[in-house]
Amino acid sequence: METSQPSADLLIDADNEVAIRQELTLVAMGKRPADRCLRVGRLLDVHTRTWIEDAEIVIHGRRIAYVGPAGSFPGTVKERVHEPDLAAVPGFGEVHKHIESSHLTPEWEAALVLPRGNTWTCEASHEFSNVDGPNNLPFWLEARRRGSPLKIFPLPGSAVPPTAYESGGGWFGEAEQSGFLRDSLMVAGLDEVMDWPAVWNPENPSYDRLWGMIRATFAGRGVVEGHGAGLRELPEINAFAAAGLASDHEAWSPEEVWEKLRHGIFTELRPYSMDQVIPWLLQKGLADWSQIAFTTDDRSASDTIRLGASDHNARTAIKLGLAPEIAIQCVTLNPARHMRLTPWVGSLAPGRFADIVLLRDVASLEIAKVWADGRPVGEGTRFLGEVPRIEWPAWATRTVNIPQPVTAEQFRIPAPGPGETAQAALLRPFHWNDGFITMALPVRDGAVQRDEGRNVTKFAIVDRFHGQGAVARMFWLGCGPRTPGTALACSVAHDKHNIWAVGSCDQAMADAVNALREIGGGWALVREGRLVATVRYEVGGLMTCRPAEELNAEMQHLYDEGEKVEWMYEPTFHPRWFPGFPERLIFATLTCAPWQWVLVAPSEQVPEGFVNVQTGQTHPVVW
Amino acid sequence: METSQPSADLLIDADNEVAIRQELTLVAMGKRPADRCLRVGRLLDVHTRTWIEDAEIVIHGRRIAYVGPAGSFPGTVKERVHEPDLAAVPGFGEVHKHIESSHLTPEWEAALVLPRGNTWTCEASHEFSNVDGPNNLPFWLEARRRGSPLKIFPLPGSAVPPTAYESGGGWFGEAEQSGFLRDSLMVAGLDEVMDWPAVWNPENPSYDRLWGMIRATFAGRGVVEGHGAGLRELPEINAFAAAGLASDHEAWSPEEVWEKLRHGIFTELRPYSMDQVIPWLLQKGLADWSQIAFTTDDRSASDTIRLGASDHNARTAIKLGLAPEIAIQCVTLNPARHMRLTPWVGSLAPGRFADIVLLRDVASLEIAKVWADGRPVGEGTRFLGEVPRIEWPAWATRTVNIPQPVTAEQFRIPAPGPGETAQAALLRPFHWNDGFITMALPVRDGAVQRDEGRNVTKFAIVDRFHGQGAVARMFWLGCGPRTPGTALACSVAHDKHNIWAVGSCDQAMADAVNALREIGGGWALVREGRLVATVRYEVGGLMTCRPAEELNAEMQHLYDEGEKVEWMYEPTFHPRWFPGFPERLIFATLTCAPWQWVLVAPSEQVPEGFVNVQTGQTHPVVW
Repeated sequence: METSQPSADLLIDADNEVAIRQELTLVAMGKRPADRCLRVGRLLDVHTRTWIEDAEIVIHGRRIAYVGPAGSFPGTVKERVHEPDLAAVPGFGEVHKHIESSHLTPEWEAALVLPRGNTWTCEASHEFSNVDGPNNLPFWLEARRRGSPLKIFPLPGSAVPPTAYESGGGWFGEAEQSGFLRDSLMVAGLDEVMDWPAVWNPENPSYDRLWGMIRATFAGRGVVEGHGAGLRELPEINAFAAAGLASDHEAWSPEEVWEKLRHGIFTELRPYSMDQVIPWLLQKGLADWSQIAFTTDDRSASDTIRLGASDHNARTAIKLGLAPEIAIQCVTLNPARHMRLTPWVGSLAPGRFADIVLLRDVASLEIAKVWADGRPVGEGTRFLGEVPRIEWPAWATRTVNIPQPVTAEQFRIPAPGPGETAQAALLRPFHWNDGFITMALPVRDGAVQRDEGRNVTKFAIVDRFHGQGAVARMFWLGCGPRTPGTALACSVAHDKHNIWAVGSCDQAMADAVNALREIGGGWALVREGRLVATVRYEVGGLMTCRPAEELNAEMQHLYDEGEKVEWMYEPTFHPRWFPGFPERLIFATLTCAPWQWVLVAPSEQVPEGFVNVQTGQTHPVVW
Repeated sequence: METSQPSADLLIDADNEVAIRQELTLVAMGKRPADRCLRVGRLLDVHTRTWIEDAEIVIHGRRIAYVGPAGSFPGTVKERVHEPDLAAVPGFGEVHKHIESSHLTPEWEAALVLPRGNTWTCEASHEFSNVDGPNNLPFWLEARRRGSPLKIFPLPGSAVPPTAYESGGGWFGEAEQSGFLRDSLMVAGLDEVMDWPAVWNPENPSYDRLWGMIRATFAGRGVVEGHGAGLRELPEINAFAAAGLASDHEAWSPEEVWEKLRHGIFTELRPYSMDQVIPWLLQKGLADWSQIAFTTDDRSASDTIRLGASDHNARTAIKLGLAPEIAIQCVTLNPARHMRLTPWVGSLAPGRFADIVLLRDVASLEIAKVWADGRPVGEGTRFLGEVPRIEWPAWATRTVNIPQPVTAEQFRIPAPGPGETAQAALLRPFHWNDGFITMALPVRDGAVQRDEGRNVTKFAIVDRFHGQGAVARMFWLGCGPRTPGTALACSVAHDKHNIWAVGSCDQAMADAVNALREIGGGWALVREGRLVATVRYEVGGLMTCRPAEELNAEMQHLYDEGEKVEWMYEPTFHPRWFPGFPERLIFATLTCAPWQWVLVAPSEQVPEGFVNVQTGQTHPVVW
């Protein structure tokens, strides 16, 4: 029989931690029987970066009690498993990931990523937090509390709200962050301080809120994570480090990575910058990779099914020439040490959770099996075991607060005057420039019109938090459907997560938004006047409580229907923007630095929603 | 004029931290003038382990605001210094040091070690804490509060008291440790959990106290330091790691170091095990040294004057073949990261204290100058600047609480019966065995006698905390004076720091102890009936508030007078015990694991003071 486990050993708290370790200490010395022994062909010690041949890992409860050469454990063991052909490496960790971007609730995320080696995740929680700040910790800890083997360490996000020009859903300041750190040892720190203008500029309305969160994190001995997008010049890199921001996951070019590393900024590399960065660092002869981790940040369940999870990140680095052992350190020890989580994760050593990736082949990082909490949880890409059945409460599932259906009229942009044309302010996806684009657009029936000929469409943000369904709308360039009567809407709109809609027709835009209103969030595609696809993200309007495969099937249907639409396209900042189905519009609503002019939901402060978030300047969308 | 500095920027707290970093951020961007710019021939970035040629370090207040190639800083600077021939590396840190073993108060320690490169120290505080637990933090933070450039990070010691069989001075449990962590961000964690039998054995009377301190440290997100002396077998190494003890500084043999490293135990190497360990690890091809630091633990001011401080540790490793850059990481980044102090120390990066060691020669680690807090503090081995004048209060200077002089009679060991001999229990310095030594000793005048012919002397522990001056005494082997009428006494008696005395004559023992009673602690040598030397440690009976050179002169006088004594000697566990002046008797009173039978001050629990601290068993000293 299994040693009885208080369910309290799932989350980390000091009381249970002591009780667990008191027991483990006796087990390691052979004074108490152990639950299980996993003997493996070889085992990677990530501390010395050396292999131990024919090793045994003795497990008690969910933790490792003992590691040594096979046969060396002096105690008794209830169950023995032998994998002579497999190599054991520690469970992979995500140092910075938005699980919301998988669009799966945490228990289904676990089922997806565990067989792919990912056993612990520092959750960059600002997506759900922007939808429901007060329930941030209850939401992220619930799956684990119910027995899910994925360890989620929530780091409350600094971007709640992302800028001072957005509101609703959540508001995190010093008191909130102090509370999170006090409430749970699972909280490792403060996630990605990303509103750079608010960090350096005392005049910025978010200045005090942000520094308050930093203050609370220092006071609680937590880690202050950074987000240095676009910070590439030495003075700014220095300022970023001086501000106490300990990491960056936004470095794209090798030179930027190098300078950030050299200024003490722990570098969290995402796979899409690896092809430039890894060979460059190797060529540079970098001998010490201890300040580097690999991580996912955002990846949809569909992409994870296609590419992999943390394993894909490490594998990408290996393919680019990095030694597999170093690549494995970059997803185990390095991120654990940076996040101060080494007592629990990051290595196959006593006291840590018994999270073990069993590789059939090290050089190709081919995963045969995965264990977590001391038991098998994955074989191939198949999750073994039960996914906890969670009935997410109303605070999680009723987050699209738009009491009345929106109307086409709300998307209409009235002409500012009697002329045949009007001046219009335009943005385009990933528009980082100082200014906005200006165009003269036709006026018809008293309203300013799209211009398909010049790739001009209409884009809207619909408030889903304040109960009014207020709509901000303007013209955008180089995106959206050219097909008539067509609109795409989505409740994932980084990082505030109102609803965005892009469309060739105001009625289609209203219909798409209203479809989301019905299903509680997700995607809706209206084509030629007909709703042809929806994808349901009923939890927070960001995630769904279903298996990844089911979500993926729904997404594939959306993609298929999307294929039948003619999408406008203009190249912009590579590699963020691609032709075809404009899925990446979910990130085109970002308002954090280095973005400047953006469209946000209307408010008293910004009635038309068009604002430069670095300066607070507003502007009419037509004039 | 210097930017005015609130004195509150000396110690780290969250409020000031934010204010300092808000300012640094603006300085780094060139929006505020900086105080000083130090341009150097080259600079070691410890994160990438690479050199930056012709670099500038821009300093504001006590911190680094900017690092880059010379001339790249965009802002204005009030003062510029150029050292084209020197190489800048980060100030060296001690990951585990008892400043008490320098026998200097913190402000004088600073003056001694700063010119030797040591700019920050994790103070293993259990010596002074065992003398005055409640004033632990006030004592360790006072010098810094007064402007001393050495950053002392006190880690409250677990060994307060060292075992459940000693008391007085201080008592640290869960509530105390919670309080320390709450009171100051300078407190990095819990120092050296060293009572191993109390860790693994629930029956041990210190079990709850120790685990309570560990619990408080986990709850406060602090680091739990270990002390694994004698733990060399795999089950115990595993148990040590499973207990959550994150480091060890007691590993002696290369194999022990290797196994501890491989079990996730951060290894803190002292120079006296380096000659075995470093070449072995190099030969093993260890490519990742990130889990290793070098440290001092205990070193007298006299030895520091002779050998060096942290520089000696790194230099020893370099001489043994380690690359200088890795050796420097082992006294900078590695210990800072382990101790979670990277926002403040461990690298030459923005936000950190501007603590800079300027090397004339890297390969030999020849230090030309040292800066700390952004100013020059050392040239050669000379300290530049003012040592704060601290009038240490009575709680610090009146710690030898023996109201009445002790008498020779108190050192007499009455015969247990009428026979001509009596059986006696003996110990010897560094006696780790399971049992004690037994000998038949002569009885004369109703008392059991020493036996110089067999190297048997008398050893005593005099209580200095409870106000009774109670004396425990027994016979010891292979140490102490053979010269008649001679005794040596000292108030440094690790780790409880009562007074020990060893002597060929009871009256001389009493005289030596009474001399310490007069001067408030230190050393006293009575030779042939005359007090010939004292060394004053008036602060806590452990340290003196004087320059190292003055203390050293007093020590040299003691050594000179000691030379005139004939000292007994028998070899014992090498390299802990040497012939000649028995200075190392201060460590022969240790009671932590792996010691078993020891002599402690008499108490109700242990009336004769002779006890096996692993089992609680007592025994008469003669029978």
